[in-house]
Amino acid sequence: MPAADLNIALIGFGTVGTGVAQILTHQAEHLTCQAGRQLNLRQIVVRNPTRYRERVPDGVRLSDSIDSVLDDDEIDLVVQLIGGTEPALDYVRRFLAAGKDIVTANKALICQHGDELFRTASKAGRTICFEAAIAGGIPVIGTLTTALTANRIEAIEGILNGTSNFILTHILNDQISYSAALQQAQQLGYAEADPTLDVDGTDAAQKLAILTQLAFSTTVSTDEIVRHGIENLELRDLQAAFSMGYKVKLLAVSRLHEGRLELSVQPTLISRSRTLSQIDGADNIVAITGDAAGRLRLAGAGAGQLPTASAVIADIVDIATGRAALTFQALMRSKNRTPVTVLPPDELCRRYYIRCTVDDRPHVLADFTDILGRHQISISSLHQDETCESDPKSRTACLVIMTHRTTEGRLRAAEADLAQLDCVRGSWLRMPVAE
Amino acid sequence: MPAADLNIALIGFGTVGTGVAQILTHQAEHLTCQAGRQLNLRQIVVRNPTRYRERVPDGVRLSDSIDSVLDDDEIDLVVQLIGGTEPALDYVRRFLAAGKDIVTANKALICQHGDELFRTASKAGRTICFEAAIAGGIPVIGTLTTALTANRIEAIEGILNGTSNFILTHILNDQISYSAALQQAQQLGYAEADPTLDVDGTDAAQKLAILTQLAFSTTVSTDEIVRHGIENLELRDLQAAFSMGYKVKLLAVSRLHEGRLELSVQPTLISRSRTLSQIDGADNIVAITGDAAGRLRLAGAGAGQLPTASAVIADIVDIATGRAALTFQALMRSKNRTPVTVLPPDELCRRYYIRCTVDDRPHVLADFTDILGRHQISISSLHQDETCESDPKSRTACLVIMTHRTTEGRLRAAEADLAQLDCVRGSWLRMPVAE
Repeated sequence: MPAADLNIALIGFGTVGTGVAQILTHQAEHLTCQAGRQLNLRQIVVRNPTRYRERVPDGVRLSDSIDSVLDDDEIDLVVQLIGGTEPALDYVRRFLAAGKDIVTANKALICQHGDELFRTASKAGRTICFEAAIAGGIPVIGTLTTALTANRIEAIEGILNGTSNFILTHILNDQISYSAALQQAQQLGYAEADPTLDVDGTDAAQKLAILTQLAFSTTVSTDEIVRHGIENLELRDLQAAFSMGYKVKLLAVSRLHEGRLELSVQPTLISRSRTLSQIDGADNIVAITGDAAGRLRLAGAGAGQLPTASAVIADIVDIATGRAALTFQALMRSKNRTPVTVLPPDELCRRYYIRCTVDDRPHVLADFTDILGRHQISISSLHQDETCESDPKSRTACLVIMTHRTTEGRLRAAEADLAQLDCVRGSWLRMPVAE
Repeated sequence: MPAADLNIALIGFGTVGTGVAQILTHQAEHLTCQAGRQLNLRQIVVRNPTRYRERVPDGVRLSDSIDSVLDDDEIDLVVQLIGGTEPALDYVRRFLAAGKDIVTANKALICQHGDELFRTASKAGRTICFEAAIAGGIPVIGTLTTALTANRIEAIEGILNGTSNFILTHILNDQISYSAALQQAQQLGYAEADPTLDVDGTDAAQKLAILTQLAFSTTVSTDEIVRHGIENLELRDLQAAFSMGYKVKLLAVSRLHEGRLELSVQPTLISRSRTLSQIDGADNIVAITGDAAGRLRLAGAGAGQLPTASAVIADIVDIATGRAALTFQALMRSKNRTPVTVLPPDELCRRYYIRCTVDDRPHVLADFTDILGRHQISISSLHQDETCESDPKSRTACLVIMTHRTTEGRLRAAEADLAQLDCVRGSWLRMPVAE
């Protein structure tokens, strides 16, 4: 006897929702074969139905209220594609209570309320899938929850935000400023009108928190993640890094150091010979190190209509076959098994890139390097740009320093002392070097 | 009620088998949590038990015959780790008949007899898993069969043989000959005493055939795959390619061209700016292009004890949870749905690298390029090395030619004509440039 059809409702019908509807419609036969049953898109819920009427496939009910989904006992699965936590949280709670499985691309929801929603779903015998919430079409959740089950995860490193990666790529390739690259990203649809959450690292930190919870069977909040954005980067930083053999990427890192977890999202110098540095444009990459599998790298389209829809549909098919329920049960068995301590950032030991502006007058470099030396920070290389300022009094110099390995704590203490020097002017930038 | 234990027998106890036993023993608690039931290694079958006695974990029965497994109704799952098709084929047939599920790392078996074994297993309600057969710890089978279900696959490209990739990497990096690099690989355990199947492309072709069958729901035999090995490559080829901006990799390609499938394993020039070219040493990479997900790249350890054992254990856990059975049923539903025509190699249109040795005397280059021109092959660049031979009569020159786009058919016709010229001496090498 063939399995009953799986009836689906879509909440939100923007870019990704349209892609999901398109694949469900155009690949119906292929998907039936994959899922072992027919996947029927039955309802779409949007705030303003009149705006969407023309794009809705034939036979799909369009409404402006989730009540029509809650009241329809034939809907098995809700694809929740609206962003932010409100009203998404309320909606998902109600869908779970009404006995629906959930597929979502909402990373903020999973990051902030995943624990509660997973417990609720588990008690109700329902399943929540969220492959599309992280790195678009790259199957990183599936890899962590099924392919690497034999492994103790040691580290996750990733370029998880396509917008900032696009901006960093174009600053360097087109030799333009941060703001020009941001404008370009906005014009091409890679950045939103308000790009804050992308460029300040919040988006990547939410994704890193979710991955960390899965990989290390623990609980972390985004507050525990050291976070620096790309807003203060200048073309000259990316050029200086490049000339020394590095590219700068907004790198998310979750790594065990003798039982304690390093957690950070920050612009990082990565050797140009490493795969991570070669992921350009809006692409994403996730590198997962397991004690058995070694270092696995997954790269691809981290966002976009069809890549994200591809992840959503994979989750739908997984729910249709019954695989997702089994994986979700395993996830619930292993959740929060391991309390993990976060490594205080001051203890992290790495090389650093420092760029700062100082007065261009005698003894400045001596004062400057004296302070670094007193904090046991050893200089690996130092470059001072020529300045074209004609008035000697207002002449400044830009120093670019690469340190040998030192702790973040020492560096912060040195920075506090350096700030007391009246020769140090304006902007100060520090980035770690990936090891 | 907790699920019953899953009882396992290992057939073969070499490098990978030892790794599997080690993870099952040392990570028992972690795996029970992942699998939702206890995974018990109950039996190991080897040809010569006395050799292995010391390495066998406590409580595991060691024997020299599969009869002890066939006779033991409590064994649910057989991990088949012996290579080659005989006696592996006979063994697997008998295990399936006895109602056991199968996990194997044997690519030759799956490539040559997968169709028969899958049908037998399906009829018996059993499951066959083979993630470990391709690219070690890289979850390429799982990605194709679960993560990309929404996609029509358009292309698979991969570096699937770690031995040849190790050799190519060391020829270039250490500036040594092919045979010196092969010797190094053998000393370090990356190549077998008889490396033929690795360096002539057979191993990669078997893996490509399996991936192609999964990705395109079709049947292909390795005979349909254009196959050239790396045995005729010289240091100067890799150097010449590098100086023009390329690295040479043994690239496996399965790509749809308007409904017809390009199938090849051959040394290929890949731009140094592409991720594929940056996979060095024994690592593997698989790039899968789907119509929705775009181009997904998976890279990691393509072989080795623990990475391969990681893939085997992931399959065991998948069988223990029940996921594997669901995935296998989907695989059987979609199998052989699409008859695909193989694209005749002569029609493939690409740029080519040609290296050949000619007499170093007047009019040779004119004769040579005249033939290329008559076959409509346009030269993009040509380099002639100086020779250090003192006797003018035996002086030869090495020509390295990059062509503009042309078909393989034209090139083969030109080669036949060139072979008639008495100025053309000895070795001739042709490699395509990846697009």
